[in-house]
Amino acid sequence: MAETEAVKVGIIMGSDSDWPAMKGCAETLKEFGVPFEVRILSAHRTPEETAQYAKTARERGLQVIIAAAGMAAHLAGVIAAHSTLPVIGVPMASGTLQGIDALLSTVQMPPGIPVATVGIGASGALNAALLAVEIMATADESLAKKREQYQVELAKKAKQKNEKLQEELH
Amino acid sequence: MAETEAVKVGIIMGSDSDWPAMKGCAETLKEFGVPFEVRILSAHRTPEETAQYAKTARERGLQVIIAAAGMAAHLAGVIAAHSTLPVIGVPMASGTLQGIDALLSTVQMPPGIPVATVGIGASGALNAALLAVEIMATADESLAKKREQYQVELAKKAKQKNEKLQEELH
Amino acid sequence: MAETEAVKVGIIMGSDSDWPAMKGCAETLKEFGVPFEVRILSAHRTPEETAQYAKTARERGLQVIIAAAGMAAHLAGVIAAHSTLPVIGVPMASGTLQGIDALLSTVQMPPGIPVATVGIGASGALNAALLAVEIMATADESLAKKREQYQVELAKKAKQKNEKLQEELH
Amino acid sequence: MAETEAVKVGIIMGSDSDWPAMKGCAETLKEFGVPFEVRILSAHRTPEETAQYAKTARERGLQVIIAAAGMAAHLAGVIAAHSTLPVIGVPMASGTLQGIDALLSTVQMPPGIPVATVGIGASGALNAALLAVEIMATADESLAKKREQYQVELAKKAKQKNEKLQEELH
Amino acid sequence: MAETEAVKVGIIMGSDSDWPAMKGCAETLKEFGVPFEVRILSAHRTPEETAQYAKTARERGLQVIIAAAGMAAHLAGVIAAHSTLPVIGVPMASGTLQGIDALLSTVQMPPGIPVATVGIGASGALNAALLAVEIMATADESLAKKREQYQVELAKKAKQKNEKLQEELH
Amino acid sequence: MAETEAVKVGIIMGSDSDWPAMKGCAETLKEFGVPFEVRILSAHRTPEETAQYAKTARERGLQVIIAAAGMAAHLAGVIAAHSTLPVIGVPMASGTLQGIDALLSTVQMPPGIPVATVGIGASGALNAALLAVEIMATADESLAKKREQYQVELAKKAKQKNEKLQEELH
Amino acid sequence: MAETEAVKVGIIMGSDSDWPAMKGCAETLKEFGVPFEVRILSAHRTPEETAQYAKTARERGLQVIIAAAGMAAHLAGVIAAHSTLPVIGVPMASGTLQGIDALLSTVQMPPGIPVATVGIGASGALNAALLAVEIMATADESLAKKREQYQVELAKKAKQKNEKLQEELH
Amino acid sequence: MAETEAVKVGIIMGSDSDWPAMKGCAETLKEFGVPFEVRILSAHRTPEETAQYAKTARERGLQVIIAAAGMAAHLAGVIAAHSTLPVIGVPMASGTLQGIDALLSTVQMPPGIPVATVGIGASGALNAALLAVEIMATADESLAKKREQYQVELAKKAKQKNEKLQEELH
Repeated sequence: MAETEAVKVGIIMGSDSDWPAMKGCAETLKEFGVPFEVRILSAHRTPEETAQYAKTARERGLQVIIAAAGMAAHLAGVIAAHSTLPVIGVPMASGTLQGIDALLSTVQMPPGIPVATVGIGASGALNAALLAVEIMATADESLAKKREQYQVELAKKAKQKNEKLQEELH
Repeated sequence: MAETEAVKVGIIMGSDSDWPAMKGCAETLKEFGVPFEVRILSAHRTPEETAQYAKTARERGLQVIIAAAGMAAHLAGVIAAHSTLPVIGVPMASGTLQGIDALLSTVQMPPGIPVATVGIGASGALNAALLAVEIMATADESLAKKREQYQVELAKKAKQKNEKLQEELH
Repeated sequence: MAETEAVKVGIIMGSDSDWPAMKGCAETLKEFGVPFEVRILSAHRTPEETAQYAKTARERGLQVIIAAAGMAAHLAGVIAAHSTLPVIGVPMASGTLQGIDALLSTVQMPPGIPVATVGIGASGALNAALLAVEIMATADESLAKKREQYQVELAKKAKQKNEKLQEELH
Repeated sequence: MAETEAVKVGIIMGSDSDWPAMKGCAETLKEFGVPFEVRILSAHRTPEETAQYAKTARERGLQVIIAAAGMAAHLAGVIAAHSTLPVIGVPMASGTLQGIDALLSTVQMPPGIPVATVGIGASGALNAALLAVEIMATADESLAKKREQYQVELAKKAKQKNEKLQEELH
Repeated sequence: MAETEAVKVGIIMGSDSDWPAMKGCAETLKEFGVPFEVRILSAHRTPEETAQYAKTARERGLQVIIAAAGMAAHLAGVIAAHSTLPVIGVPMASGTLQGIDALLSTVQMPPGIPVATVGIGASGALNAALLAVEIMATADESLAKKREQYQVELAKKAKQKNEKLQEELH
Repeated sequence: MAETEAVKVGIIMGSDSDWPAMKGCAETLKEFGVPFEVRILSAHRTPEETAQYAKTARERGLQVIIAAAGMAAHLAGVIAAHSTLPVIGVPMASGTLQGIDALLSTVQMPPGIPVATVGIGASGALNAALLAVEIMATADESLAKKREQYQVELAKKAKQKNEKLQEELH
Repeated sequence: MAETEAVKVGIIMGSDSDWPAMKGCAETLKEFGVPFEVRILSAHRTPEETAQYAKTARERGLQVIIAAAGMAAHLAGVIAAHSTLPVIGVPMASGTLQGIDALLSTVQMPPGIPVATVGIGASGALNAALLAVEIMATADESLAKKREQYQVELAKKAKQKNEKLQEELH
Repeated sequence: MAETEAVKVGIIMGSDSDWPAMKGCAETLKEFGVPFEVRILSAHRTPEETAQYAKTARERGLQVIIAAAGMAAHLAGVIAAHSTLPVIGVPMASGTLQGIDALLSTVQMPPGIPVATVGIGASGALNAALLAVEIMATADESLAKKREQYQVELAKKAKQKNEKLQEELH
C-alpha cells in the first residue's frame, strides 16, 4: 500500500476480524491516491500503544484517523481523547446485536470530544474513506476535484444501473 | 455573529425549534473565532433552497456544513447529496422517540455519500462545532493550537470539578 | 411491462439490489392492469434526477409514486418534498439493522410532508402496489371492483389453506 | 364541522384520549374544505361497529379512512380488513413505549392488506390529513391545486422563520 | 388429532407458515389428552370467519383459544374483542424484525381486552399449550395432576442432562 | 378487601411502589366479587417466602396468581417455577427503560414454564384482573356472565364517548 | 468519608453530574465500613489521569474500582484496559436514550477485558457497592457476615412493607 | 476437569444448549488453574436444586458463581437471591431476540441484589472466567500475577496480529 509518501490517514481497527469490512476503506483511499497506513490497535488490549499512536499522530503528519471497532466500541473515542485530529468512527457489526451496540458506543460521545461517526459495517467503512478525503480536500483543490469526480461517477453508475434495468424490463 | 469575515461554516437546521439545542454549536464556533452563518433550511419544506445552498457552498467559500434535524432527519443526507464538502449531521431529539429515529436517519447513509454524525441533541451540537474546527485545523496551525488548548481547558475543568468534589467530601 | 398505456404509477428504487424485494410490487400492479414504470433513482447519488422525476410526475400523468429504499432511507421523503402526488414509502431491509433504520427514516416525516409507509421488505412492496390501486380506485369504479375481488380471492386462498390443513391433520 | 356536504373522509380513533393529537388532522381537512366525520370506534371494545363502519364506508361515499390508535394499535388494520378504501394509520404515543408499539402494530401489515402509515402522534395526524387530500386530489384538480398551494405556503413559512432568525442573530 | 371428544381448545393461526412453530403446541395438548382443533384464520384476510369463530367459541364448548400470528399480529386481539374466553397470544417471528413487532402487537392490549401473551416462536407455542392446560386444570383435578407430573418430568430431564454433562466432563 | 370468602386470586408485587399501578387490578377483581389477597413478595429479597407462597397456593385454594414486577422482573417466572397454577405476569415501568426490560423478563419464558403476560403498567394490571376472571369463568357460569356483561358495558362506554364527541363537534 | 484507613474501593465518575445517582453507592460502602475514595475522572477529558489511576490502583491497595459513566460510556472499559483489578461498571441514564447507550457501551466488552456491569442509574449504583463488598468478602469473613446481615435486613424490610400494606388494605 | 482440589467457582447453565457458548469459560478457568465445577440448573425447571446450590455454595467453599441463561434469564438473579457470593451473569443469545432479552433480564436487578453482568454469548462467557479470576485474585497474589500475565499475552497477540497484517499489506 501507498506508504512511500508521507502517510496522511491512519486506519486503525480493534481486531483483525474487522479487516474484511474495512478493506473497502483502504481501497477507496488508494483510489484517491491518499497515502495511508493500517494498524491493529485495541483500546482494551493495547491501550498504551493506542494512546501513543493518537498522541503522536499529528506530529507524524497524519491528518485524519479512521477507527473501526465492534461491540462496546471504545476505540474511536479513546483515540479522540488523545488527539485533536478529526477522528472518524466506524461501528462494526460483530457480536449478536448487529452493530447497534457499536454505533451507540461510537456516536454518543460526551460534549468536548467529538467522533465523526459513519454507518455500520462495510458501507460505513467506504464512507469513512470518502469523509477523510473530503476533510483533506478542504485544503487540497486537486483532491476536491477528484472527490467531485467520484460523485459524478457514482451518479453515472446509478444511471447505468437504471438503464440496464429498463432494458431488462422491456 | 461573526459574518464580517468570509463565512467558513454553515449551520443549517430543519426547523427553528432546533435552535435551543444548536445554540451551543454557534457559540463554540464563535469562541474559536470561526466565521459562520446560521440558516433554517428544510429538506422537505424548502428542498430547492436546500439543494441550492449545498451546491453553492464550496464556491461561497464554506469549508464545512453542519446540518441538524429531527425525526426522519434527511437534511444532512440531502446536503451531502449536493455537496462534497464535509457534512456533519446532528440528530435532534424531537418527536417521541428521543432522537433514535434521527440518529439512524442521519448515520446510516448508503455507500458513496458520507455524513459525519455526532451524538443526539445539545451534546452532539457542541461536538459538531469542535469537529468542524478540527477539520479546518488540518490546514490551519493556529486553529489547531486553539483546538489543543480547548482540550487542555477541558481537562483542567474536569480536574477542578474533581477537586471541588474532594473538598465537599472531606 | 405495461408502459404502452399512459403510465399511472412510478416505482422507484434507491438501488438495483432492491429489485428482488420490489418485483412483487410490479407484478401486482400488472395483475391489476395498472400501467407503471420502474426507475432506479437515488436521493443521494442522483439527487437532481430524483427531484426532476418528482417535479414532473404529475404533468406526466402519474397518480402515485412508490419509493423503496434501505438504511437511511430518504428517497420517499425527498420525492414527497418535490411532488404533491401521494408517495408510498417501502422500507428495505438492507444493512445489518433489518430495516428498522429504513422504517424510521421513511415514516417519521415532519408535519407538512406525508409519506404513506408500508411494512418492511417484500410484504410491504406487495402492499404498496395494493395501496396504489386503492388510491386510484377512489376515482375508478372498475379498479375498485378488481380490488374488492382481490380481497375475496385472498380470503378464498386463506380458507383453502385452512381446508388443506384440516385434511392433513385428520 | 363540515358534515353538510357528503362526507369524504372518516377520522376514527380508538379512544377519546386520542383527540388532542388528532385535532390537527380534522382542522387540516377543514382548511382544505374536505367534508369529514369523526368517530370513536375501537377494534377491541366495539368491534362490530368498527367492522360495520368499514364495510359501509364506500357505499356511504367515503373515499379515505384515517384510523388512529395507540399501544397494540389494531384499529387501522381491522378497518383495512373490512374495506378496500385507502386506510391511513396514525400510531398514537399512549402507554410507556412512546408509540413504537403502535407504529409496529400499524405498519407491519401482512401481504394483502395495506395500511398507509404516517409518523407517531400529532405530526403524523396532520400528515394523515394531507395524505387523504393527496389521495382525493388524484381525481380532483382543484384540490390538487390547493395541495400545491399548501406546499408553497409551507415553504414560505420556513423562509420567514429563517429571515426572522437572521434578524435575531444580527 | 383428538377431535372425537368435545373440542376444548382452539388453536388458530394467521397463516399456514406458522404451523411449524405451532406444531409443538398441538403435540403438547395431545400429550395431555386435551381435545383441540386447529384453524387457519386471519384477522385481516378472513375477518368475518375470525369474528364468527370467536363469537361462537364458548357455545361450541371451547374453553381456551390460542392465537398465533406474526408482524402486526392482530389475531389474538381481534379474537379477544369477540369472545370473553381466555385468549392466549403467541407472537411469531416472521418478517425481518424477529418477532418484536408481533410481541408488542399482541401484548400491549388496551385496558378491558386482555390477551395472555407468551414468548416469541416455538418456545411460546409450547408454553401456550401448557397455559391452556393450567387454565382448564383450575376446574379439573386430574388435569392438574398431569400438569404437576409434567413439571416433575421437566425437572427430571434437566437433572438427567446435568448428569450426562457431569459424565462427559469427567 | 374481600378476604372473608376463600381467597381465589393472589396479587403479588415485587415492591410497594408497584401498588399505585396495581390498584386497578384489585379494584377490578372486587368489582367482579372475586375474593383476593395482596402481598408484597420479592423474587430477590424474600425468595423463600415467594417460593413458599407459590408452593402452597393451590392447597390454599388459590386459582390464579397475578405477579407484578419491574426491571429484571423475575417474580412471575419464579412463581411459575414453584406452582402449576396459571400465573399472570404484569411488567411494571419502573427504572429508566419504561418497562421494556420488565416485559422481556416476564414474557420470554423458556419452554415448560409459561407466564401469561399482559401489557406494561396500569393497563396491563387491569387486564390481569380480567384475565383472572376469564380463567375462573371457564368453570363458573355466573362469573362468565358478569365478564360478558363487562364487555357490553365497555362497548357502551365507548359508544357514549363517541356520542359525547359528536355533540362537541356539532 | 472514610479515607483514614487504607482505601479499598475507588468510585470514579465521568462527570460531577453523575454524583446524585452515585451517592447511594458511597453511602452503602460507608455503611459496610469499607474505606473508599471518590474521583471525577473522564476517559475522554482526562485520559492520562484515568489511565494513571487505573495503573497504580493495585499498588495503592485498591481492591475494586467502580466506574460510572453515561452515553458512550467508555470509563469502565478504559479502566479495565489498564488494571486487572475487578472493575464494576455503572451505566448512567444521561442523554436522551435513558441509559441504553451507556449499558451497551459498558457491558459489551470484547473477550479478554471484562467489566462487571450492574443496572442503569441509582439502583445499579447501590448494587455496585454491594458487589464490591461481596468481592472483598470472599477473603474477609467479617465483611461476608455483614453482607449476609444486609440481605437479612433487606428481607425484613420487604416483609414490613408487606405487613404495612396488609394493614392498609383491611 | 479440575475438581480434585476444592472447587472455587461454580459454572451453572440453564440448559445444556448453553454449553458450546460456555466452554470457553471453563477452559479459561482451567488455564488459570482455578478448580471449578459445571452444573445444569434451571431457575424454572429445577428451582429447588438451584436455590439449594446457591444456599450451600459458600459453605462448600465456592467463591464465585457464574450463571449463564438465555431469554427471560432469571438464573443469575435467583442465585443472587439465595447467596451473597459474587454472582456473575452471562446472557445467552438463545431465542430470536439475539440476547437483548437475556441481557436486560440479567443486568437490571433491583437495588439490594447485584448481578455482575458481562457481554452476550461466548465473549461474555470468557470474560466471566476472567472476572472470577480477578475477584479471587484480590486475595491471591499468585493468581493476580497470572491475571496480569494474561493481559500481557493478550497485548502481545494483538501486536502479532498487527505485525502479520503489516506483512500482508506490504
